Amino acid sequence: MRILFVGDVMGNAGQEVLEEYLPKLKHLYHPQATIVNGENATKGRGINEKVYKRILSCGADVVTMGNHTWDNAEITDFIQSAKKLVRPANFSAGQVPGIGYTTIKINQQRLAVLNLQGRVFMSPSDDPFAVAKDIISELKKQTNFIFVDFHAETTSEKAAFSWYFDGQVSAVVGTHTHVQTNDARILPQGTAFLSDVGMTGPYDGIIGMKRQNVITRFLNQMPTRFEVDENGRRNLSACVIDINDETGKAKKIKTIQINADHPFMQ
Amino acid sequence: MRILFVGDVMGNAGQEVLEEYLPKLKHLYHPQATIVNGENATKGRGINEKVYKRILSCGADVVTMGNHTWDNAEITDFIQSAKKLVRPANFSAGQVPGIGYTTIKINQQRLAVLNLQGRVFMSPSDDPFAVAKDIISELKKQTNFIFVDFHAETTSEKAAFSWYFDGQVSAVVGTHTHVQTNDARILPQGTAFLSDVGMTGPYDGIIGMKRQNVITRFLNQMPTRFEVDENGRRNLSACVIDINDETGKAKKIKTIQINADHPFMQ
Amino acid sequence: MRILFVGDVMGNAGQEVLEEYLPKLKHLYHPQATIVNGENATKGRGINEKVYKRILSCGADVVTMGNHTWDNAEITDFIQSAKKLVRPANFSAGQVPGIGYTTIKINQQRLAVLNLQGRVFMSPSDDPFAVAKDIISELKKQTNFIFVDFHAETTSEKAAFSWYFDGQVSAVVGTHTHVQTNDARILPQGTAFLSDVGMTGPYDGIIGMKRQNVITRFLNQMPTRFEVDENGRRNLSACVIDINDETGKAKKIKTIQINADHPFMQ
Amino acid sequence: MRILFVGDVMGNAGQEVLEEYLPKLKHLYHPQATIVNGENATKGRGINEKVYKRILSCGADVVTMGNHTWDNAEITDFIQSAKKLVRPANFSAGQVPGIGYTTIKINQQRLAVLNLQGRVFMSPSDDPFAVAKDIISELKKQTNFIFVDFHAETTSEKAAFSWYFDGQVSAVVGTHTHVQTNDARILPQGTAFLSDVGMTGPYDGIIGMKRQNVITRFLNQMPTRFEVDENGRRNLSACVIDINDETGKAKKIKTIQINADHPFMQ
Ligand SMILES: [Fe+2]
Ligand SMILES: [Fe+2]
Ligand SMILES: [Fe+2]
Ligand SMILES: [Fe+2]
Ligand SMILES: [Fe+2]
Ligand SMILES: [Fe+2]
Ligand SMILES: [Fe+2]
Ligand SMILES: [Fe+2]
Repeated sequence: MRILFVGDVMGNAGQEVLEEYLPKLKHLYHPQATIVNGENATKGRGINEKVYKRILSCGADVVTMGNHTWDNAEITDFIQSAKKLVRPANFSAGQVPGIGYTTIKINQQRLAVLNLQGRVFMSPSDDPFAVAKDIISELKKQTNFIFVDFHAETTSEKAAFSWYFDGQVSAVVGTHTHVQTNDARILPQGTAFLSDVGMTGPYDGIIGMKRQNVITRFLNQMPTRFEVDENGRRNLSACVIDINDETGKAKKIKTIQINADHPFMQ
Repeated sequence: MRILFVGDVMGNAGQEVLEEYLPKLKHLYHPQATIVNGENATKGRGINEKVYKRILSCGADVVTMGNHTWDNAEITDFIQSAKKLVRPANFSAGQVPGIGYTTIKINQQRLAVLNLQGRVFMSPSDDPFAVAKDIISELKKQTNFIFVDFHAETTSEKAAFSWYFDGQVSAVVGTHTHVQTNDARILPQGTAFLSDVGMTGPYDGIIGMKRQNVITRFLNQMPTRFEVDENGRRNLSACVIDINDETGKAKKIKTIQINADHPFMQ
Repeated sequence: MRILFVGDVMGNAGQEVLEEYLPKLKHLYHPQATIVNGENATKGRGINEKVYKRILSCGADVVTMGNHTWDNAEITDFIQSAKKLVRPANFSAGQVPGIGYTTIKINQQRLAVLNLQGRVFMSPSDDPFAVAKDIISELKKQTNFIFVDFHAETTSEKAAFSWYFDGQVSAVVGTHTHVQTNDARILPQGTAFLSDVGMTGPYDGIIGMKRQNVITRFLNQMPTRFEVDENGRRNLSACVIDINDETGKAKKIKTIQINADHPFMQ
Repeated sequence: MRILFVGDVMGNAGQEVLEEYLPKLKHLYHPQATIVNGENATKGRGINEKVYKRILSCGADVVTMGNHTWDNAEITDFIQSAKKLVRPANFSAGQVPGIGYTTIKINQQRLAVLNLQGRVFMSPSDDPFAVAKDIISELKKQTNFIFVDFHAETTSEKAAFSWYFDGQVSAVVGTHTHVQTNDARILPQGTAFLSDVGMTGPYDGIIGMKRQNVITRFLNQMPTRFEVDENGRRNLSACVIDINDETGKAKKIKTIQINADHPFMQ
C-alpha cells in the first residue's frame, strides 16, 4: 500500500497548488490513499465546507486537522456529517463535535487515519499517548494499516510518540511547524517517521503568512492580523510512504517538496 | 568563502562522531571556516573547558551555544578567556559573562560569527531582533561576511529573523530543535537560510537522549533525569554554505546528514 | 463542620511555624478537620516520609500536594501506603502512584478531600474539570462534605472551577501561588471559594525562597539553585470554613495570616 | 502624600462602579493622587479615547495599562497626545507609541508613575528590571516619590521586583490577575508592596468576563469570544498608600474592596 500525505494547506494559495500538483503527484506515484492536512485551508485558519469539498475533489481521501480546527466557525455546520474529516482524537473527550479517526477501504484492506495533537507548547488537551494507545489497540482488531498525523510543536514529543508506537502503526508523520524536516526514516520495528511534513501554500511567506505582518509583530509585539500571502510563489510539501501489504509495516518513506528551488519533475 | 556548520554536539557520542567525520568533511568540502554548536557537548547540558578544547582540536574555528549555555557550571571557569566561544548575544545585557559574537580571519577577509536566542517558548532574553540590528550594523563597518546561529524553537521566529536580515548577513542557520529541516534556500537578497541544522550525536535517541526516559516522562509526567544515549548509533548534522568572496552574499547552501540511513560517501 | 486549611508548608521554616501555631489555631477555632498542603514541605520541593509524619503529628488530618509532588524522590518509598496523603487526582491516569482523594470520618459524617492541578501555565495533566466531575459524582453518593484543594497558577482557571462546581462541593480553595488572595466568599449555590490560601514558611523570602537567588535569576536569567529562606521571620497562611452540618453547603470562610505584620492574637 | 490606586477597570461595568465610588473614596480618604489601571476599560480589551477621558473625569490623575494596551485599535488615534496615559515602559524600545512613565505635580512635590510588564507567562518584552533600573535612576534626580504599577502574572516576579527596588521607589503594586492579594506590606527599606490590587467591574464574572463562556472554554477548549459581564453585581478593588512627605518612603498601605460582601462604609 502506498500513501501520499500532503502537509498543512494554507489558504487559497494552498488550495491552488494542491489542485495543480495533486493529480500530477498521483500520476507519478500512484498512491492508494491520499491524506491532506487542512487545518489552515480557509484563509489560514480552520476550514469551511466549501474548501473541505474542494480538497476532496482535488483527490484527498481524508482531511486531517490540528490546533486550528475550530478557527473557522463554519466548521460546526458540517463537521458532524463530514465522514472524511478527522480532528485531533484527544480533544476534550465527549465535549467536542467530530471524529478523531476514520478508516477507508483500499482494495481488500482498511487504512485507519488517526489525528492527534501534542501538549508541549500547545493548548491543553487529553493525553495523546493514552488516547492513542486505546484507539490503536481497538483499531488493531480490524487492521494493521494505521496512519497517524501527529500535530505538535516540539521534536521531542513527536519523536517520543513515534518510538513509543513503533511497530504498532504504519506511520507517524508530524504537522504544525509548517517546515518540512529532513529526518524521514523507518524505525526499527517498522513505523515510518517524519517529524514534520511541512506546509502547502505560499513559498515566500513566513509559515505561509505575509512576511511584513509577522516581522512587524516580532519587532514591536503589537497585535496584527496575519493574512495568508496569497499572491506570491507557491510550495507543496508532502511525503510518500510504502507499506508492506501483508504486515502493515512501512518499507520506505520519501519526502517531497515542490517550489521554485525544487521544481516538479515527472 | 565556504563555511561548514555542525549542529548541536550531544555528549561524548557527539564528540566522537565529530572527531571521526569533521576531518573527512573538511577533506571533502575544504571549508575556510568551521563552526560547531556546542551547547549540549558535555553530557547533553552545556560545555566545560576540556570538551571545548576537544571540539576546537577536532577542527572547529568557533563554538556557538544556546539556551543550555550555563547548564554546566564549569563554564564560568573559562568563558571569560575563551576567545572562540560565543553565547547568545541577547542574554541579559551587562549581567552575564562571555561574548555574543566574534570575528576570525580568513585569508584577507574577516568572518563574523554571531549567536542569538529566540524568545518564543524560551526563557526571557533581550530582544534578538533589536540586539542583532545593532551588532550587525556595527559589524558591517568591518566586514560583509556575517554568519548567524539563531537558536530558537519556532519556525516562525527563525523565518522572520532571516527575512528581516536578508541581504544584511551571509547566512542565518537555526539550531535548538535537534532535527534538521528540509528548507535550505538562498533568500532573494542573498542570505542563506536553514530553519534548523539538526543535532550531532546519538541517532536512536530522542533529541539525543535515551529514549526510555523521555517516553516515560511523556507517559507519566513524573520527573526523570535525561541522559545522553551514548552507546548507540550516531548521527552528524551539518550544512555547507558558499559565499561570494566580493559581496558576502550567499551563493549556495547544502545540508549534510551522516548516519546509518545516510552513510558518508567520499 | 469546621475545616482548617493551611497553605503550602515551605521547608523546615514552614514545619516549625506549623508546629508552633497549629495547636494554637486549633485551640482558638476548634476545627473538626485540618488539612495542610505539603508539596514544598521538604526543603521546598516535595515531601519525604519523615516530614509527612511530622505534619500529621502537628495535627493535620490530610496532607495535599501539587506540581512539586514528585520533586523529592523519597516519596515513592511511602506514597503507596500513605493513607492521608493526596496528590492531584488528574495526574496521568493509571501511570502514577498514590491517591487523588480520600475521606475521613468526622463524628457521624464523612469529609472527602480532593486534590487537583490546573493546566494553564503548568505541566500537562489530565483534564481537571472532567476528572473532578467523575470523582465528585461518585463521592456525592456517600457524602455532601467535599473539600477541594485546586492547585493552579491562574485566577481564571481557579474561578472557573469553583463556579462550575458551585453547589456540588463544600469548598474550593486554591494553592500554588504562595500568596494569599483577598477574595474569600461563598458562591451563590453554597461553595466556599478562595483563589489562593497562600504559603506557610519564610516571611521575607520570595515565594519562600531566599531572595537574593531569585532576584539574581531575574536579573541575569542564569540557572541558580533556589533554597528555602530557613532562618528569617515566618508566616502562616490558612483559612477556616464553616459548613452546614445538614447540607454540606458552606456558611462562612475566613482567611488567616500570622506574621510580623499580623501577629497571632488569641 | 497619599495615593489611591484602583485596579483594572473592566468594561462599562467597571466605568460605572468607578464613577459611583471614586468620588466617595476621595471624600473618605483625601488622596493627593489617584491612579487607575485602564487596560480593560473598553469592553474588556484596551481603551479608547472616550473611555480614557471618562476615567479622567471620574477623578483619575494617571491611567496605567498592561498587556491589553493595544487590544483596542483606537488607541493609536490618541496615545501620542495622551499625557496622562502610561503603558508598560519595557515594551519594545523605540518601536511603539506612547510613554512608559510620567510625573504629576502634587503641591510642592512631583509624583512619578511608572508602568511595567513582567515576562513570566507573558508575551516577550524588554527586561523590566533593567528598564526600571535606568528609569528610576533618572527619576531619582528629580523626585523621591515613585509609584510603580507592575503588570505581571506570577507572584515571584512581582515579589522579586519589589524587593529589588525596595527603598528606591515609594510603592510597587501589581496588576493583571484581577484578584486582590492579601499581602499588602511595607518592605524593610520603605517600599509599599501589594502583589495584586485586583479588578474593578463585575463581581460575579470570571476575571470580569461572563462566566458561562469562560467555563465552556475550560470544558471543551474551543474558541469563544469572552465578553464583560456588564449587567450583574459589581466590585471595586483598590489600595491607599501613605508616603512620608520628606523621604518618599511608604508608611502605610491599605487594601480596599467594595462589593456585595464588602459594602462601602463611610
Ligand atoms: Fe498548520
Ligand atoms: Fe497547527
Ligand atoms: Fe541543543
Ligand atoms: Fe537548545
Ligand atoms: Fe507550593
Ligand atoms: Fe505548586
Ligand atoms: Fe487586566
Ligand atoms: Fe493584564
